[in-house]
Amino acid sequence: MRFRLSYGDCDTVGIAYFAIYYPWMERTYSCWLYDNGIRAGEMTDAFGVYVVGVRSEAEYVRQVRVFDELTCTPELDRIGDSSYRLAFRFRRDDEVVTVGRMAFACRGLDHRKAPVPARLRTLLESLPPHE
Amino acid sequence: MRFRLSYGDCDTVGIAYFAIYYPWMERTYSCWLYDNGIRAGEMTDAFGVYVVGVRSEAEYVRQVRVFDELTCTPELDRIGDSSYRLAFRFRRDDEVVTVGRMAFACRGLDHRKAPVPARLRTLLESLPPHE
Amino acid sequence: MRFRLSYGDCDTVGIAYFAIYYPWMERTYSCWLYDNGIRAGEMTDAFGVYVVGVRSEAEYVRQVRVFDELTCTPELDRIGDSSYRLAFRFRRDDEVVTVGRMAFACRGLDHRKAPVPARLRTLLESLPPHE
Amino acid sequence: MRFRLSYGDCDTVGIAYFAIYYPWMERTYSCWLYDNGIRAGEMTDAFGVYVVGVRSEAEYVRQVRVFDELTCTPELDRIGDSSYRLAFRFRRDDEVVTVGRMAFACRGLDHRKAPVPARLRTLLESLPPHE
Repeated sequence: MRFRLSYGDCDTVGIAYFAIYYPWMERTYSCWLYDNGIRAGEMTDAFGVYVVGVRSEAEYVRQVRVFDELTCTPELDRIGDSSYRLAFRFRRDDEVVTVGRMAFACRGLDHRKAPVPARLRTLLESLPPHE
Repeated sequence: MRFRLSYGDCDTVGIAYFAIYYPWMERTYSCWLYDNGIRAGEMTDAFGVYVVGVRSEAEYVRQVRVFDELTCTPELDRIGDSSYRLAFRFRRDDEVVTVGRMAFACRGLDHRKAPVPARLRTLLESLPPHE
Repeated sequence: MRFRLSYGDCDTVGIAYFAIYYPWMERTYSCWLYDNGIRAGEMTDAFGVYVVGVRSEAEYVRQVRVFDELTCTPELDRIGDSSYRLAFRFRRDDEVVTVGRMAFACRGLDHRKAPVPARLRTLLESLPPHE
Repeated sequence: MRFRLSYGDCDTVGIAYFAIYYPWMERTYSCWLYDNGIRAGEMTDAFGVYVVGVRSEAEYVRQVRVFDELTCTPELDRIGDSSYRLAFRFRRDDEVVTVGRMAFACRGLDHRKAPVPARLRTLLESLPPHE
């Protein structure tokens, strides 16, 4: 996922607004799943579980400015029985500028913890590991 | 609907970003309907018609800056047999800074033009007329 | 400018939220200027005029859904002595789904109307005409 | 800070989109500072330091739906010599639905760590402590 910052992404001094990374994480995640045949919004139909976001975060390493071009790469940060966490590296050229994370939990239709579906697990494990 | 502009609403020179008015129009419209007992997203269930947005626009009259406090007031701009258009006046104190519009069309479940439902029409006609 | 809709772009029924087109227009416009050596936010320094947005609008022709892939192409809609208007065609494959417009006016440092700077005019006239 | 969720805040199943909390945190923080006489974007002029965001996060406790009315309350999570962290509780009635955090670091004009300015420190310490 590659994008160039524009004025709508930046605050009054031309620095990227801290919140813009979150929709890019979601876009990277959802489009990556989609490109691999999974629609994030339809996992209940596909797998009989639903996946809820339980946490998101971003660590700002370098300031980023209007017209900087960034890439966002998903990595597998952690996978457990019924939950997983992705990391997202935002880079300007080779320099990491921001590191984001999104943590998800799988629930059955009874709202209890449910195992990560096998097909999703396989796909997640194909990501480069974080760190 | 009253709100104070913050940094996320403003561009690199501290002027309100041109696109921020649109979500405020939708919020004003949807919350006004909701406060009057209509959920914009559930008109198909309630009335047997669905309402699609066909056009939106904004005219920028005065520049608006970070921490300015604005109000947004809905007005009825035009109502026809199967469509209607709302205007939204954004004011800073008594001064109009931006005028927005959203136009909607009613469709039946067969996707053809359908009359504006009577209850919605009555409600729309209770708004102050535009101009 | 090419992008795929994701969940953050869509409303509760999976249709693209009406307001998302505006930041994409600005991104398309600003990045097109930037790729041609002009920073939209620095025209005062470059040309001795500043350019203000006076109007924006969008006409929704077709409904667009999550994961649809859209392109946005800028066109010259109108150019006058001291103002210009761009159109933006959003297409899904070859089908136009939304048409946006942004109108701008040039002002001198005395806040009066000023001519469109020659270099900007030449660049604008290099765009395909609208319609 | 009180607001009602509208369609633009929600994803395809009517649940609040995970990223919407971040601009509300910033709005709550910046407006709280502003109401107390400090403009977040002008601390360099006021105090001779600048304040950078180093981290943000949100923990999602309860799902929130379109038209839910939320409040956002700032709390002091931690304050050190040259940095501080705020927590933001989002509540629906009395129920906490989301807990956010934003961490900031103070830098001098030489870009080195600088003490939290006394006036800002006093103000931060007037917030209710987190937990």
